[in-house]
Amino acid sequence: MAQRCFPEAWMARALTLARRGRYTTDPNPCVGCVLVKDDRVVGEGWHERAGEPHAEIHALRAAGGRARGATAYVTLEPCSHQGRTGPCALALVEAGVARVVVAMQDPNPRVAGQGIARLREAGVEVAVGVLEEQALALNPGFVMRMSHGRPFVRLKMAMSLDGRTAMRSGESQWITGPQARREVQRLRARSSAILTGVETIIFDNARLTVRPEQLELPAGEALTTRQPLRVVVDSRLRLPLAAACLRELGRTLVVTLKGHDPERCERLQAAGAEVVAMPAGANGRIDLDALLRHLAAAEQANEVLLETGATLAGAMLAAGLIDEMQLFVAPTLLGGEARPLFALPGLTLMAQKKGLDIHDIRAVGQDWRITARPRQGSKER
Amino acid sequence: MAQRCFPEAWMARALTLARRGRYTTDPNPCVGCVLVKDDRVVGEGWHERAGEPHAEIHALRAAGGRARGATAYVTLEPCSHQGRTGPCALALVEAGVARVVVAMQDPNPRVAGQGIARLREAGVEVAVGVLEEQALALNPGFVMRMSHGRPFVRLKMAMSLDGRTAMRSGESQWITGPQARREVQRLRARSSAILTGVETIIFDNARLTVRPEQLELPAGEALTTRQPLRVVVDSRLRLPLAAACLRELGRTLVVTLKGHDPERCERLQAAGAEVVAMPAGANGRIDLDALLRHLAAAEQANEVLLETGATLAGAMLAAGLIDEMQLFVAPTLLGGEARPLFALPGLTLMAQKKGLDIHDIRAVGQDWRITARPRQGSKER
Repeated sequence: MAQRCFPEAWMARALTLARRGRYTTDPNPCVGCVLVKDDRVVGEGWHERAGEPHAEIHALRAAGGRARGATAYVTLEPCSHQGRTGPCALALVEAGVARVVVAMQDPNPRVAGQGIARLREAGVEVAVGVLEEQALALNPGFVMRMSHGRPFVRLKMAMSLDGRTAMRSGESQWITGPQARREVQRLRARSSAILTGVETIIFDNARLTVRPEQLELPAGEALTTRQPLRVVVDSRLRLPLAAACLRELGRTLVVTLKGHDPERCERLQAAGAEVVAMPAGANGRIDLDALLRHLAAAEQANEVLLETGATLAGAMLAAGLIDEMQLFVAPTLLGGEARPLFALPGLTLMAQKKGLDIHDIRAVGQDWRITARPRQGSKER
Repeated sequence: MAQRCFPEAWMARALTLARRGRYTTDPNPCVGCVLVKDDRVVGEGWHERAGEPHAEIHALRAAGGRARGATAYVTLEPCSHQGRTGPCALALVEAGVARVVVAMQDPNPRVAGQGIARLREAGVEVAVGVLEEQALALNPGFVMRMSHGRPFVRLKMAMSLDGRTAMRSGESQWITGPQARREVQRLRARSSAILTGVETIIFDNARLTVRPEQLELPAGEALTTRQPLRVVVDSRLRLPLAAACLRELGRTLVVTLKGHDPERCERLQAAGAEVVAMPAGANGRIDLDALLRHLAAAEQANEVLLETGATLAGAMLAAGLIDEMQLFVAPTLLGGEARPLFALPGLTLMAQKKGLDIHDIRAVGQDWRITARPRQGSKER
């Protein structure tokens, strides 16, 4: 005898399914769907990769005729537009689904409630908002891009307990242990782009790639061969032509100021880089907000992983452009001569300190991961 | 019907009683005693302050004639020497106690197993080592002083998440919140001495006192009016004559190099300071190890709380003289210009990084407290 379940339980299952796509759906969101009839699952599915069917279509195919009269639990509002795979709202209606429970409305302005409206017009009962917070957290980049026109920016740093990311010489291998480095690989794999400053390439010759053999994904989690876009902030086109990242799979985008040296630019392009020119901000440097908007608009970038040194990290923080920080803290001390996390040159008074909200602290191997978000709007705690 | 208890349960009770004395017994250790007969407590007590009876005597007085045939659970080996209150081993024998369970042998060389030997000679059954680790942790300073001739040094620092203890100007009020500052008051109250550098006095005019109204002790925890000895490392006698700490209750000990200016010394003494001269170490600065040995020998210092800036903290760390760190971490960022935790000028290679063992991380109000111990003997993790 099946136990009658709360809607939240079915939606939690749909969220679990959705999460399986987190390394593969980019630039699409992760979506999961569970079809339930008489308190039993009759079909389920998740969106696996862009260009392939949406979660609802997979679930309907699995259910076949049993979809008639069923309730669909979907983590995101079914689409109403004719995309690459046809509108899911219509498919649910045609399959005779009686009721649709939706975790969150689609923030995509091309959908924005139209999918729900279509279902209701066709006589399907619709409930919205079940585990909405969890559904929003599943796709922070997609939601940010759709609703604010810029990606979700996640800063990753490996640091000693006294707040240092490298020796004065730049030497930094390795501050944290293998488990922390595996987590960084997973962060890269879920990101649309990795953003860095040219000095990180000059000093570390960083490749900024996903190395699938280091991910150690749990069973059932698929991985794409896609490499995140590498974005190098390089106002004076100092990127070495021999940089290792230019010879890796995937694209490297060099972001420079308008009016850059065209000859140097051509040589970088010949070496494998793409070059894009940005306007200068108020301080004469690359306008970082404009850069992020470019990545959202031109590259469909959802999540951007910021892996860089104190200068660019400090500039991003000061501009209010960091949405989340993941700080991997090693149980070591590197001393006051070593390199800091953030250069914040204008910060000289306690009253100007940058407040953070700590969301999570947990052990990762012998290190600790602190997940924090800058407090926006207020410089005070 | 009383449930038969494990020895560990009675010893845990004795440890709880012992802990009540942690702000008052200095320079004596905290000790608790429970007398048990037929699985019922017939008397209990703890050492409250130096010069007053030991835990065993309080418990025996409470038990009266019921002590005959009882088992005594004591967190520290009963003393055998004629101190201010008479040997406790003898008192237990005279009261007819049949069995004594001891958590740890007394590290005091004047006792060192003699109390246990006396009991056994008198026909009392003795077991040693029940909850020994917890008993050792109860009196880290007393154990260190007795076994190594120096105090247990605990470093306390309030820091931002990016490893900063003050603005570049020295401004530091307040990095952490009121709950963290209350914990610091409790650390001061349990310490025999507070060790600092003269610059902390010059820049902050720190008083380094226990303010009883800020301790907010749980019911049943007594507090003494004793102020910990204030110890200021001041090789060039720069301590201002108007320093606030010189006008507080308790003593201020200025530690300087041999061959200091006798006139300045007299003026400091007239202002309320005591001055002690130390030999110079290999680097020409005050020999910090000799200073600690002096505090143990001349001041009976058990726990020393190190509250200071990056220079002295770094020197103590580099000399291997820090036993424990309590880092109060605020969810804020102060930037790369702000003051560091440790000046470690010789540390330039990752291979020289200082490894720590993290013992505890917990929330304290809106801040976090990290308790760590430096890895001794090895510079590598």
